[in-house]
Amino acid sequence: MAVTATNAPDTTTRSDLELLDAWWRAANYLSVGQIYLMDNPLLREPLRPEHVKPRLLGHWGTTPGLTFLWAHLNRVITREEQDALYITGPGHGGPGVVATAWLEGTYSERYSQVPQDAEGMQELFRQFSFPGGIPSHAAPETPGSIHEGGELGYSLMHAAGAAFDNPDLLVACVIGDGEAETGPLAASWQQNKFLHPVHDGTVLPILHLNGYKIANSTVLARIPDDELLDQMRGHGYRPYLLEGGFDGEDPMAVHERMAAVMDEIVAEIARIRARAAEQLAAGEDVQRPRWPALVLRTPKGWTGPKEVDGHRVEGTFRSHQVPLAETRTNEAHRAQLEQWLRTYRPEELFDADGRPHAELLALAPRGPKRMSATPHANGGELLRDLRLPDFTRHAVDVPEPGSGPASATGTLGAWLADVVRANPDNFRIMGPDETASNRLQAVFEATDRQFIGHIQSGDDHVSRAGRVLEVLSEHLCQGWLEGYLLTGRHGLFNCYEAFIHIVDSMFNQHAKWLTATRHIPWRRPIASLNYLLSSHVWRQDHNGFSHQDPGFIDHVVNKKAEIVRVYLPPDANTLLSTYDHCLRTRNYVNVVVAGKNPGPQWLTMDEAIAHCTRGIGVWPWASNDDGAEPDVVLACAGDVPTLEAVAAVSLLRRHLPELKVRLVNVVDLMRLQDEREHPHGLSDRDFDGLFTTDKPVIFAYHGYPWLIHRLTYRRRNHPNIHVRGYKEEGTTTTPFDMVMLNDLDRFHLVMDVIDRVPGLAVKHAALRQHMVDERLRCRRYTREHGTDAPDVADWVWPDSTGPRM
Amino acid sequence: MAVTATNAPDTTTRSDLELLDAWWRAANYLSVGQIYLMDNPLLREPLRPEHVKPRLLGHWGTTPGLTFLWAHLNRVITREEQDALYITGPGHGGPGVVATAWLEGTYSERYSQVPQDAEGMQELFRQFSFPGGIPSHAAPETPGSIHEGGELGYSLMHAAGAAFDNPDLLVACVIGDGEAETGPLAASWQQNKFLHPVHDGTVLPILHLNGYKIANSTVLARIPDDELLDQMRGHGYRPYLLEGGFDGEDPMAVHERMAAVMDEIVAEIARIRARAAEQLAAGEDVQRPRWPALVLRTPKGWTGPKEVDGHRVEGTFRSHQVPLAETRTNEAHRAQLEQWLRTYRPEELFDADGRPHAELLALAPRGPKRMSATPHANGGELLRDLRLPDFTRHAVDVPEPGSGPASATGTLGAWLADVVRANPDNFRIMGPDETASNRLQAVFEATDRQFIGHIQSGDDHVSRAGRVLEVLSEHLCQGWLEGYLLTGRHGLFNCYEAFIHIVDSMFNQHAKWLTATRHIPWRRPIASLNYLLSSHVWRQDHNGFSHQDPGFIDHVVNKKAEIVRVYLPPDANTLLSTYDHCLRTRNYVNVVVAGKNPGPQWLTMDEAIAHCTRGIGVWPWASNDDGAEPDVVLACAGDVPTLEAVAAVSLLRRHLPELKVRLVNVVDLMRLQDEREHPHGLSDRDFDGLFTTDKPVIFAYHGYPWLIHRLTYRRRNHPNIHVRGYKEEGTTTTPFDMVMLNDLDRFHLVMDVIDRVPGLAVKHAALRQHMVDERLRCRRYTREHGTDAPDVADWVWPDSTGPRM
Repeated sequence: MAVTATNAPDTTTRSDLELLDAWWRAANYLSVGQIYLMDNPLLREPLRPEHVKPRLLGHWGTTPGLTFLWAHLNRVITREEQDALYITGPGHGGPGVVATAWLEGTYSERYSQVPQDAEGMQELFRQFSFPGGIPSHAAPETPGSIHEGGELGYSLMHAAGAAFDNPDLLVACVIGDGEAETGPLAASWQQNKFLHPVHDGTVLPILHLNGYKIANSTVLARIPDDELLDQMRGHGYRPYLLEGGFDGEDPMAVHERMAAVMDEIVAEIARIRARAAEQLAAGEDVQRPRWPALVLRTPKGWTGPKEVDGHRVEGTFRSHQVPLAETRTNEAHRAQLEQWLRTYRPEELFDADGRPHAELLALAPRGPKRMSATPHANGGELLRDLRLPDFTRHAVDVPEPGSGPASATGTLGAWLADVVRANPDNFRIMGPDETASNRLQAVFEATDRQFIGHIQSGDDHVSRAGRVLEVLSEHLCQGWLEGYLLTGRHGLFNCYEAFIHIVDSMFNQHAKWLTATRHIPWRRPIASLNYLLSSHVWRQDHNGFSHQDPGFIDHVVNKKAEIVRVYLPPDANTLLSTYDHCLRTRNYVNVVVAGKNPGPQWLTMDEAIAHCTRGIGVWPWASNDDGAEPDVVLACAGDVPTLEAVAAVSLLRRHLPELKVRLVNVVDLMRLQDEREHPHGLSDRDFDGLFTTDKPVIFAYHGYPWLIHRLTYRRRNHPNIHVRGYKEEGTTTTPFDMVMLNDLDRFHLVMDVIDRVPGLAVKHAALRQHMVDERLRCRRYTREHGTDAPDVADWVWPDSTGPRM
Repeated sequence: MAVTATNAPDTTTRSDLELLDAWWRAANYLSVGQIYLMDNPLLREPLRPEHVKPRLLGHWGTTPGLTFLWAHLNRVITREEQDALYITGPGHGGPGVVATAWLEGTYSERYSQVPQDAEGMQELFRQFSFPGGIPSHAAPETPGSIHEGGELGYSLMHAAGAAFDNPDLLVACVIGDGEAETGPLAASWQQNKFLHPVHDGTVLPILHLNGYKIANSTVLARIPDDELLDQMRGHGYRPYLLEGGFDGEDPMAVHERMAAVMDEIVAEIARIRARAAEQLAAGEDVQRPRWPALVLRTPKGWTGPKEVDGHRVEGTFRSHQVPLAETRTNEAHRAQLEQWLRTYRPEELFDADGRPHAELLALAPRGPKRMSATPHANGGELLRDLRLPDFTRHAVDVPEPGSGPASATGTLGAWLADVVRANPDNFRIMGPDETASNRLQAVFEATDRQFIGHIQSGDDHVSRAGRVLEVLSEHLCQGWLEGYLLTGRHGLFNCYEAFIHIVDSMFNQHAKWLTATRHIPWRRPIASLNYLLSSHVWRQDHNGFSHQDPGFIDHVVNKKAEIVRVYLPPDANTLLSTYDHCLRTRNYVNVVVAGKNPGPQWLTMDEAIAHCTRGIGVWPWASNDDGAEPDVVLACAGDVPTLEAVAAVSLLRRHLPELKVRLVNVVDLMRLQDEREHPHGLSDRDFDGLFTTDKPVIFAYHGYPWLIHRLTYRRRNHPNIHVRGYKEEGTTTTPFDMVMLNDLDRFHLVMDVIDRVPGLAVKHAALRQHMVDERLRCRRYTREHGTDAPDVADWVWPDSTGPRM
């Protein structure tokens, strides 16, 4: 199965490959130059200390492999007029992909201050990893990149994400052998069971074994070839193994073998796609192909110094970063650097003006076919607005507050089905086998789960093509969606709330990417990354403690306010309105937490739209302050806390009718923050208007209570804000027992009111005791019957205190 | 290679297997009973509605597979007198492992209120997933478990962690085919390149393909067998494939095949270990064996209802949770439940008192050989204190504050080498190829990286046996360490600060496990999970933005205060003292953040010990308040913020000598919190003593500034606390430019003092402008030279304001 090609390709002549080699040398020269030089870029004079950067920062080891692959891909892209995207798994090999972008002219198009001449070359070198310059990785600043690669593991999932619904696109994905040890990458191989061979594009995984990480060998470089190939076959690929460049092998020989393998792979991809298209046209089942995968084994730091200070460097971990560390102060190092640079024969590559020779320029594909210039790597260029059907058609009828019950996510699902119908080729829903569990099953009336493995009778809404991608890996869901968004499409990721922490780190990287792109003029805005977190902390009746964690919100708000949004719609209509908004936004991360269990509904559609537009507001029907200053503010954010707060209001009405209570509901959590801290933040004046400046505020919050303090600590009334939320108390138990365990229940909220409003504690000690007794009653009922007491399980407004007072 | 055994084993008779089947039926009966019944446990009367629980919560689908494997493992454990540990990857199959623990008598030994009789059986049933009872998963409460399994992906890494340095232990690890889709599990297969076949125990991976997740098929169940087996071979295993129970196959036939396969596997493991021991004894290189791995394919919900309400249930995702949902209200469902329960023939399994028949009891291994009773699953029973060498021997000489420079982690590394030498069999260091990068390379004077793949010349401190485990997967580092700690050993995980977020979710689960175990009397305390986070946010000179995230601390402090500790030692001696403390603690998660770059040293060893013992304190040599009330408090936490704060003090001394400044350094971050919130929290009196009640506090903090507010918002002086920290500004740049980008630099701290101390702003406007100019000067220098200006790069106390005033 595996091929080690030995024949030169038919159509490529020796001189073609010599040109290709020259192009590769140019890219390598430009890479080394970026790492080392700040002057004398063309080596027109002997290298002096002041030509060398004082701080040498960058990663050489992976770079020559990246440029080698780029050069060979260019050969076939040009010939086949192929649309291609290059994913740089070893993203720290930034110099390599910056160099190729400059060689292809894209860099100078994006950055006019870095023209394709000697002056531009000097600036290209100087700016790299230099204060005020560009980062050392394949960053947002890098043309052609959608993948930073500083945090390893996500290359192949980004590649698949880019390929979905892009049938004409070839995504060449370079995977470092260090990265291949990570979990997310290891899970990514199964993407071939999800990519449709006609409707989706082609991903070509290129596992680049250069053998070493920072200071140690890699696992995959140290297992026998037969195991390596078994592994690739086991993942469903047809592996091609190419090894070259060791023991001083002439690169030309490697070029010849590589060109041959690349031709075979390209031909095979074409055959696979043609056959799948035939199957589809004939109405046959489209079978999962054995896509090719390339395993490339070359020395780490190939073409770099063989030995430095008596240590082997090329082909070892010592070439990971900067092989020659003292080139400014150590004359021998500097001489070796100059010698190294001259091995690329720059005088053959660049003309007197420092411009690459015309023959080299001619090797690059044209315009957007250049991988450095493909619009797929600047997704905003391709982005089409979603066609969003009228969500109000799915409004839940709310004759009065507290009616229902209805499932918020269930309601949303019906609208999402409409969204799917209206956007059949640029909207996808990702989830770890939880689409139905999170009650979005209505989308299956409009589409299926896409799966290119064996489908058998009894499978529920699984077919070859569908808008829903389900795989039990939050990493893949996140990575696929990121790749899909970064290439200009739309989607959402639905997930159990607790387990979204699995992708905390991926969120970080995407958030950082978005933050950086906001300051890069040529990067066009992309669709926001939308989370729908359901099966949340308060309703894990059958899974208990391990499934209870509302802390993703805390994690998210550490990132730049300009890209982060958090919504806690309390019912179905507010969820509809919120999600309609989220799907229209750009360049944000929207976190929406919503319950799936049937619950009481509070707002009519019109009220919901108005409330969501404000993001925060008084619910007059649950307040009796009549617009004047209340005695106490009950605030709430989240569906379960809202129910408890409203139920507390009804208790207060009955027992303390003279108390002036204001209920404030928060949908848009960032409204709590200062307007100077977050674009959605309320002014102090508005905040004070809602929360008063001196009255007690009892805040029933969905998550960890400290977050409310973190958001409001600058507010004038902060000392009076008392927050109830999840404090890591939980197990397999009933819904009301859960809120009681965390003191978020209605009875405890009433106790909090009594404790905090001046003058109530003594006068209403009996009522407070009654609340304590009510908690005990509920606790006992639950322990005995295994269910919540009926009055708390199916709460309705007590007749006497109905919502319309 | 793959074996599908068809012959009955030689040594096991038909009647042995009939008994085994009875034991299995008993375990299944007890499992179904837990999910459904609250009364009539032995079905001595027809099932009535009130016998059935009102809320049916639990997962049936995976359970019969778990009990089947347990039964067959017991057969060989008993015969071989094998020490064994069972890891329940599908941990939500809790009823199964609770049932086997009860059958083996362990459950009643741990919980006297659940004896091995009819009354105990009723309690066993009632308590499951019942308020006030036990969780539905294989929880800390479950005897024999070290693995909750609610968050999928970590079974095989826990298994390997348990096996390290436990040569006599067999760890049978059941991996669900849902779990197998996750990244962490996919990465775990490479464990066989790290487990030593003589010094470490044996892990037997059992991939259980029951075909379905919650509502969808699994990927691995839908690929051809040859791919599946190639995958296992590619991972370096010898796979055994056993399929049974489909199309109504008699379980006895499956038992026969399973017994044969299990015998083969056990024999093969013995051969492998014997051969490795011979190699070792002969002084030969110990080769990596092809360990066996079992792929077991049985129907989901095997032996459960075949069909319910016209839908197929056994063998489909519909048996994932509760196959019969309305057994209390729907008479047909209830009848079907009774019929189902009776298929296990309880009258043959339990005597008149509800006690399992003696023949069944006799099948369990004896005492601690029972998997439910193994001390390896209650690691505290096996825990030996570390022998901790005197860390003061590694003290850095600090003739005066600001001397040095020295590397904190480099200094720690030398002591850790001593720890390794003194504890050759129960202490390990895990890291993602960053041990040297984090400057712990001194440990390689005492030990090597352990690796059972190909080792070649030039590899640096890599050998077959060593205390350091390096794999480029933070998931594996975390999971291996968890497994190692849970089975009673010690260790630490060193990691780049930013990428520890990769295991946020794993930390959550371990923290929850520790929280729960504190309330389970028979769970003995285990060693703390120790993080050493280095290569931190402020010193990512060559990696930039993607490598900058100090938010793990924020994540950690959301968990229960009783198990969470966070330390930010400012220099080498404080790091030594801190880590010595951490390695002595139990049942905590200790997060230690420390720099690796050479930096100024502040405290002598004696001072460091005293300071770390307090956790927070005034540095008198950096203060001039002479014990009286200062005009301003400069607080700092973390090495870089401490340097900036001290440098700010020196500027203030020079320019505003009359200003009374107090410098407070925080090592133990939890000291900031209220003593009612955290056991380490300061009393208000002590806090006020340090931070005053009304003076401005300028707080230079290592991480996101909001955390300091979250920890101190209840303090009297909170309104005057002004925090500088990381606010997501960063790129590839110099160290001082990084602190300037985030306004944490000394000049900005002085500006903050001028802005906040009443009376300074107008009077010292010129000084403020000077600070602004200083920042501009540094910025310009860096942009021009690519390095920090010498005076900020190599800061020393200016002569005139030396530390000893």
